[in-house]
Amino acid sequence: MSRRSLHFPAPDAATLRARIDRARSATADAATDALLIGPGSDLRYVIGQAGGSFERLSVLLVPATDAAPTLVVPALEAPGFADVPTGELGVEVVTWVDGEDPYRIVADRLGNPGRVAVSDTMAALHVLRLRDAMAGAEQTLAGPVLRHLRMCKDAAELAALRRAAEAIDRVHARIGEWLRPGRTEAEVGADIAEAIVEEGHTHADFVIVGSGPNGASPHHDVSDRVIEKGDVVVVDIGGPIPEGYNSDSTRTYVLGQPDPKVAEEYAVLQRAQETAVRAVRPGVTAHEVDAAARDILTEAGLGELFIHRTGHGIGLDVHEDPYIVSGNDLPLQPGMVFSIEPGIYRAGQWGARIEDIVVVTADGVEPLNTRPHDLTVLPDDDA
Amino acid sequence: MSRRSLHFPAPDAATLRARIDRARSATADAATDALLIGPGSDLRYVIGQAGGSFERLSVLLVPATDAAPTLVVPALEAPGFADVPTGELGVEVVTWVDGEDPYRIVADRLGNPGRVAVSDTMAALHVLRLRDAMAGAEQTLAGPVLRHLRMCKDAAELAALRRAAEAIDRVHARIGEWLRPGRTEAEVGADIAEAIVEEGHTHADFVIVGSGPNGASPHHDVSDRVIEKGDVVVVDIGGPIPEGYNSDSTRTYVLGQPDPKVAEEYAVLQRAQETAVRAVRPGVTAHEVDAAARDILTEAGLGELFIHRTGHGIGLDVHEDPYIVSGNDLPLQPGMVFSIEPGIYRAGQWGARIEDIVVVTADGVEPLNTRPHDLTVLPDDDA
Repeated sequence: MSRRSLHFPAPDAATLRARIDRARSATADAATDALLIGPGSDLRYVIGQAGGSFERLSVLLVPATDAAPTLVVPALEAPGFADVPTGELGVEVVTWVDGEDPYRIVADRLGNPGRVAVSDTMAALHVLRLRDAMAGAEQTLAGPVLRHLRMCKDAAELAALRRAAEAIDRVHARIGEWLRPGRTEAEVGADIAEAIVEEGHTHADFVIVGSGPNGASPHHDVSDRVIEKGDVVVVDIGGPIPEGYNSDSTRTYVLGQPDPKVAEEYAVLQRAQETAVRAVRPGVTAHEVDAAARDILTEAGLGELFIHRTGHGIGLDVHEDPYIVSGNDLPLQPGMVFSIEPGIYRAGQWGARIEDIVVVTADGVEPLNTRPHDLTVLPDDDA
Repeated sequence: MSRRSLHFPAPDAATLRARIDRARSATADAATDALLIGPGSDLRYVIGQAGGSFERLSVLLVPATDAAPTLVVPALEAPGFADVPTGELGVEVVTWVDGEDPYRIVADRLGNPGRVAVSDTMAALHVLRLRDAMAGAEQTLAGPVLRHLRMCKDAAELAALRRAAEAIDRVHARIGEWLRPGRTEAEVGADIAEAIVEEGHTHADFVIVGSGPNGASPHHDVSDRVIEKGDVVVVDIGGPIPEGYNSDSTRTYVLGQPDPKVAEEYAVLQRAQETAVRAVRPGVTAHEVDAAARDILTEAGLGELFIHRTGHGIGLDVHEDPYIVSGNDLPLQPGMVFSIEPGIYRAGQWGARIEDIVVVTADGVEPLNTRPHDLTVLPDDDA
């Protein structure tokens, strides 16, 4: 028996009800008969609880018509949804027990749909069994239907993301307490993880301490490498606050004075990051923001070292729409929140990245992370 | 930028190579052209690394023929697979970068398959895009193909599961240090979570402290309820050890002497659990083991209170095949490992559950958890 704890403060019933109504309209607009939302952030967004089981099907059916949404859950898991104001939301709850066929229950509730959209995170286990139980229904992804709701944050969501950013900024302000030559990345990472919780997160979702050559791997986490004098160190950290909204911020540190070549290339990176942030405003496309950072690095001959997209949306998920990536012609709108995080990676030598979460405002941009962008010089005396 | 750390000690290359070969044969036996294994335990089982990204496709293609398996990964994630002995395993690595279409890469590698099996945990995001990229291919689940490999554990896996069980037993031996009237479930749970790590797990995957009426919800976790004198308390805890194998064990405690009615019903539960354990041997079906526990509770008039299956397999996943559930006619084989965990749940009053992990041996059963099964009486003086 096991279930991860997934209870959190939830929005009020009026907010959730409005979200369900908008999800319903978006479903109709997408010529889709129903959304099938499994456990995860989409479910948390519309009913305030993420759910949590894996092999037993839990799913919220949101029809495009004004029929009642139905939450199909294992009887065992029903207590986990006790805080959901199902009455006020007009959500019917149908429970099932081990031995019953929940896919048949879903098919029966939906009648004979022509097209259903399943949440992007739903496991193949359920996707394919739902497909078999509703042989006449074309399956599409719910992500494109829900992303327009989830991308533009309301005031309460923005406030939560601001609190998350402030919490992770407080951790970055303390990095000098732990990051010293002679300690391993893993030791430093463990201290940072503790501080992430101390400063108001429910847990540390990720802790990247990429020292020296390890900084050149953007998705490095931590290792037993002993940090040395002179190392450039990428520290990329974050996690959720109790409301479920995430922080994610990167700063780059150096232990002692940096090599002049490093300082010079870092200065270009800093200019690229700050230019991309300033490029953000309603109507500009995600592609254009990516290009704003990339062009500066390319002009300086560093374009080949910037091997990933410029950023990702953030909210209930650490990575969500909009993605700030080449080719994404989505025009930015007020309330969108995403990272701006160009990096440069010299394989086998060092890496650097600067990452802020920013909000698109009515006429521009508001960065939520406010720590200095400079390559932060820390003392190089041994631990 | 974020990725959960998913590096662990891995089996040697010979073991992994044998697993890939068996996966390949099982794929051919299932009249399937290829397995498409995404991040998770299936991937860890066959190449020793679980991977970790979500929205960027990482997938291992295992063809039924003797063509080389191919690991398709984002260039960003490739360093996370650096420890995989791809050369010795004969695995080709193909990386892709943001802006490329990884689904097209998979389709091109596989040619024109008639049937592909995707891992059970693969997200709909990838399942449906792979479907669209290979319009001629029927998609099925990889779980049924791989479960016959993963269900029967080898000696190293059994040793790891034994170490995990010993570690969680040490935590249960210490429950009296923390479980006292006047403390909340959440406070007790936090202490237990710390001990789970101290005793050798990488983290606490789940901590259920169900006191009084909360014990009657099998998937309760913890709450702010203050534990009272006389409470019956279900403690169901576990997590992975560094090798990735999981513990999961439940014991039920009472603070002070139990009510005679509770003691009487608990005695029936204990008999049901022990009878089901003794029923385990090769050739007996999962259904029969479930029935062994259920019949005893039913005969005592408590069958209605046992509202879930008797158990689940355990290994790299906390819940995996075989499921010890009514209707599962799978005959047990040596090396299978699963929980035996009947429970009784008196809604609004109390609950009890006893859970051991057991191994099917050549001629019977070996329980891995060895803590006493009795309702453990703890002192009822206030914290």
